[in-house]
Amino acid sequence: MTPAVVARVAGTSGEREFLDELIHHGHFLPSGEPGVYGRGMTFEDVRNRFDNLVTSVSTADSPETPRFPPIIPKRTLEKAGYLKSFPQLCGVVYSFAGNEAAALDVGERATRGDDWSHHLSTTDVVLVPAACYPAYPALALRGRLPGGGSTLDLGGCYVFRNEPSGDPARLQMFHQRELVRVGEAEEVLAWRETWMDRAKKIFEQSGLDATLAVASDPFFGRGGKLMAKNQRDQGLKFEVLIPIASPHPTAVSSFNFHQDHFASAFGIQLHDGTVANSACVGFGLERITLALFRAHGMDVRHWPKDVRKQLWPKADGSLRRR
Amino acid sequence: MTPAVVARVAGTSGEREFLDELIHHGHFLPSGEPGVYGRGMTFEDVRNRFDNLVTSVSTADSPETPRFPPIIPKRTLEKAGYLKSFPQLCGVVYSFAGNEAAALDVGERATRGDDWSHHLSTTDVVLVPAACYPAYPALALRGRLPGGGSTLDLGGCYVFRNEPSGDPARLQMFHQRELVRVGEAEEVLAWRETWMDRAKKIFEQSGLDATLAVASDPFFGRGGKLMAKNQRDQGLKFEVLIPIASPHPTAVSSFNFHQDHFASAFGIQLHDGTVANSACVGFGLERITLALFRAHGMDVRHWPKDVRKQLWPKADGSLRRR
Repeated sequence: MTPAVVARVAGTSGEREFLDELIHHGHFLPSGEPGVYGRGMTFEDVRNRFDNLVTSVSTADSPETPRFPPIIPKRTLEKAGYLKSFPQLCGVVYSFAGNEAAALDVGERATRGDDWSHHLSTTDVVLVPAACYPAYPALALRGRLPGGGSTLDLGGCYVFRNEPSGDPARLQMFHQRELVRVGEAEEVLAWRETWMDRAKKIFEQSGLDATLAVASDPFFGRGGKLMAKNQRDQGLKFEVLIPIASPHPTAVSSFNFHQDHFASAFGIQLHDGTVANSACVGFGLERITLALFRAHGMDVRHWPKDVRKQLWPKADGSLRRR
Repeated sequence: MTPAVVARVAGTSGEREFLDELIHHGHFLPSGEPGVYGRGMTFEDVRNRFDNLVTSVSTADSPETPRFPPIIPKRTLEKAGYLKSFPQLCGVVYSFAGNEAAALDVGERATRGDDWSHHLSTTDVVLVPAACYPAYPALALRGRLPGGGSTLDLGGCYVFRNEPSGDPARLQMFHQRELVRVGEAEEVLAWRETWMDRAKKIFEQSGLDATLAVASDPFFGRGGKLMAKNQRDQGLKFEVLIPIASPHPTAVSSFNFHQDHFASAFGIQLHDGTVANSACVGFGLERITLALFRAHGMDVRHWPKDVRKQLWPKADGSLRRR
């Protein structure tokens, strides 16, 4: 591990304190690995309630709601250009395809806690790095887009990032509630704009101190600095930032204009045969849930009345029983 | 690939026909990789409805409902003894930790579709092979069990099996709805018995032709044959089998008595300090959904009235709107 990675895995004292509090209240269940936690019943209830809040807003778009598993073909990740930008974050699935003797050695080494990785080889699948990746090839397969393009609500998908961290808000796998719009540049940009307004309102109603700001992705290495600058200069990425446990506010939601990046890579065409544009909107559900606990306290029964009403609408009996 | 694997990936003609039908009706969205599919809106609706059916039955147990992500520490898989039994099915996450030059090579090779796996190294996480694996270390951390033990409903978790297949019912990642009972041997066995009865009823009400039978796990290699025989002889595993698209009925649900295997491995103690026993019940949600489409047809509007009533109860408006 580099010194930067060692520091990241240790976490700041504020991050450690918040993590301890989450564990103490049964919201996070430690696994022994940084960034990998089970979640308690109340945490999951809040996460699902916020997810429902997004659903109540997204229905206005009448989106299609397909669902994708957390793995995609390795070739899809390659075609999307992910490895040129974020090789450090990828997750490639390896498995065992050896003979009886090798299997025996794997079993014995595993029991002792010794390394058995030399017995493994790559499979053809990788973990999904962002919920929208599987959607583009699926859209392309259907042929040209209808007039007006397509809107997808992909639900809360598990995505993977190889970044073990002591910050409880930085998980190795988390639920990204993602929506995708594919069509002409103008309609795609207008849709992203609408969602920035919608998100602002959702976070306001949730009693969270949210700031919208231009942002960039964590591109790898020195060359990545230029890519990040270009992304900012062109306003391709915006994020909503909310204070959680880190010294600086944490990104909990992003609004991304891809231009024709994905449509070109996978061959998504408008109804007239020209290449489409795309945008996506993502909500990091665990981060938002953590922000809610941070802002309103560890016991949901003591959360502000307005926030509770928002997340547990009156019609639902569970509010009273809490 | 061995000849057996080549045949498995090709699938039987019945499996290919069923897969084509699923794709034609928008229930499965092909990714290009066998065993990896997106699912359409109707498929997901049915899957969630069946999941709700299990919930309506499981509430009688007043289970805790923690949730776990689809990755666990590699050490957890090792301690559970998984690699001694099923090395061929494991999924270990690899990633990139190289320098700028290596990253450049990864990007270029990936663009060309060339191999870049020599730049990858193992991380400390693996994919969850069965939904209950993360639950045991979490239970152990809480200290001794309360009198009467513990019951968990883990919801529909994504689990991974490295077995690419042309059979649409054999997915590389799928939702396993799993429930776990930890306590004394007798209470754990009685609970498993109760669930075999409950499952029989659920499948009957869903209009599925279900058979309960003693079963064994797919242990690796020649040595695995003896382990499978022991498992059968001791009645440790039962499965519900339903015809889907394969020549033989497909296992859609299993009922497993682990004796003290997991409790010993992770140190789960009864209230008196002796080692606990455990059992789990799993429903393969995609397989069950496929079985429903196979039995009742591709168009849910034409499903038998009784089955529709079961999955879309009257109280819910969505039945009428269908």
